[in-house]
Amino acid sequence: MRTIIGVMGGGVSDHGTAAAAERLGSLIAAEGWVLLNGGRAAGVMDASARGAQAAGGLTIGVLPDTDTSRMSEFIDIPILTGMGDARNVINVLSSNIVIAMRGSSGTVSEVALALNAGRPVIMLDFPLRSTFPIHYSSGQLIDAATPEEAVSHAKRMVDERVGNTIAKGTTP
Amino acid sequence: MRTIIGVMGGGVSDHGTAAAAERLGSLIAAEGWVLLNGGRAAGVMDASARGAQAAGGLTIGVLPDTDTSRMSEFIDIPILTGMGDARNVINVLSSNIVIAMRGSSGTVSEVALALNAGRPVIMLDFPLRSTFPIHYSSGQLIDAATPEEAVSHAKRMVDERVGNTIAKGTTP
Amino acid sequence: MRTIIGVMGGGVSDHGTAAAAERLGSLIAAEGWVLLNGGRAAGVMDASARGAQAAGGLTIGVLPDTDTSRMSEFIDIPILTGMGDARNVINVLSSNIVIAMRGSSGTVSEVALALNAGRPVIMLDFPLRSTFPIHYSSGQLIDAATPEEAVSHAKRMVDERVGNTIAKGTTP
Amino acid sequence: MRTIIGVMGGGVSDHGTAAAAERLGSLIAAEGWVLLNGGRAAGVMDASARGAQAAGGLTIGVLPDTDTSRMSEFIDIPILTGMGDARNVINVLSSNIVIAMRGSSGTVSEVALALNAGRPVIMLDFPLRSTFPIHYSSGQLIDAATPEEAVSHAKRMVDERVGNTIAKGTTP
Repeated sequence: MRTIIGVMGGGVSDHGTAAAAERLGSLIAAEGWVLLNGGRAAGVMDASARGAQAAGGLTIGVLPDTDTSRMSEFIDIPILTGMGDARNVINVLSSNIVIAMRGSSGTVSEVALALNAGRPVIMLDFPLRSTFPIHYSSGQLIDAATPEEAVSHAKRMVDERVGNTIAKGTTP
Repeated sequence: MRTIIGVMGGGVSDHGTAAAAERLGSLIAAEGWVLLNGGRAAGVMDASARGAQAAGGLTIGVLPDTDTSRMSEFIDIPILTGMGDARNVINVLSSNIVIAMRGSSGTVSEVALALNAGRPVIMLDFPLRSTFPIHYSSGQLIDAATPEEAVSHAKRMVDERVGNTIAKGTTP
Repeated sequence: MRTIIGVMGGGVSDHGTAAAAERLGSLIAAEGWVLLNGGRAAGVMDASARGAQAAGGLTIGVLPDTDTSRMSEFIDIPILTGMGDARNVINVLSSNIVIAMRGSSGTVSEVALALNAGRPVIMLDFPLRSTFPIHYSSGQLIDAATPEEAVSHAKRMVDERVGNTIAKGTTP
Repeated sequence: MRTIIGVMGGGVSDHGTAAAAERLGSLIAAEGWVLLNGGRAAGVMDASARGAQAAGGLTIGVLPDTDTSRMSEFIDIPILTGMGDARNVINVLSSNIVIAMRGSSGTVSEVALALNAGRPVIMLDFPLRSTFPIHYSSGQLIDAATPEEAVSHAKRMVDERVGNTIAKGTTP
């Protein structure tokens, strides 16, 4: 079973965030991990998949749609749900670890759903401390300033098996 | 077609929040509106359904489960989804207006999903201004201090047809 | 908690089937049961809701959409899922008893999902004996020739509490 | 984007069906296609994943659960939905072509949902001609007697791009 890292973030993103997302994708692929995101040809989704695929990684896009007409060209494996935002739940459940970048209500929903499902979440340049104080206190939710720091946190979690709630079926 | 008001909030709640939820439920019923919530026998869900049913209102519970074993006894119409937290999307899509009370990650996910779906959201004693600054600026997200104030806001929205994105299929 | 009878059937239906669906809806309402269907302004959905509402019954439509633009005008309570055909699962889980009328692949999917979920299914003028031989043998799936016969079967099931897998959380 | 072949079939299967499922999995992998199924450690799911993985193929399991406790050990990529049978919709939407083997109500639901979504379906030793006469007439649903014949049909469909409703967003 492959280690899957979910990358969440806005469908609209500024240049700096998109560049960081692409860098994050390449770092995830370099670790041999699978990148999973929301699969659309926009913002953090498109940029992170581009970075991962360029670095030789496998990319999975869990789409809200029933076809691939809005899909990023950098997705290898489209998972078509036809379920709109309900697919956000699948994104986070299927990720051993979630890394969340700047976004709006859709991204916040994914962070909240990940926390509710017991998945570890790393906020990359998108602190939400006041929204989720309990999860920061417990260490389920942590901050990172750069893609390199986020991946460093993720490596530690994978080594310590913090993120294997998927396999265990238990909350860390 | 009936007007449906969604009440979101924690599965665990302190006494003050539970009392406010029961009061909110009774006020919603008194307006002739249908109350919709997550349906479980816990926290804001149970208390708001109790209040609405006691005031003669109709209550709908959209449950994460495939049966009613965890359902509040104050639900008239159980909608069984078997979909876990993916049912949060249904809760907010089916509500003309969402009123959110104190809660944790599950409640925040519902607020975020409601905003993403274009539904108006009233935060009752649970301000999230720093999490959703854009939606506060646009007026899609507003605060209320008491159940009475929340229902007063909702009445204005219903009168102004602000909440009928359900019928229009458009964002306000 | 109200008894909910799900009526499934084609989005396109001939005149005889539509007339039977309307009759079925009125008989369901006359028993004091809630009618639940797929909610669209088409075929068996529209006709059965029309019949139930005309007879003073409450009608629930579980829609595949995020708004009511395709909804039957005879639905009192729209449950908006935005989940496309995944809402078929909700239709059958939320029904104490499912009555299925003539339809195509969508209707067959609902019958199959209902049987898989342990719900009793009454086929009204739409026998599927060769498709589900085991479920016919066990009595979970039965045939009826007329709306009156279907409701008679349903009454017996409600009286014998055959259909209360919803409440029990067990398979009959 | 990879070609994804969905293999559906019973969670309980006799020895002959399991052997055929394993053979089918290996043939799918030999074509360079990705195998997708329901991911559980049972019946056709387990056997087809075993065959594909042994032949060097990539396997995706779309699970009804929120963790991997019931997952086949031959799945490379678990997609965790927590949605129960609603994941059947995802299975078929995400498959360019669906191959269905002997099964009960769950498998029939997947065939019906695939047909409703416009996906081509090959029935392997599990004819359902009387259930879906219109789809047989149109050629959307065809029969095969052996894994080799099923893959031969699938190859022709891939070559003729019959199965690319995923990419086109249109029904064949």
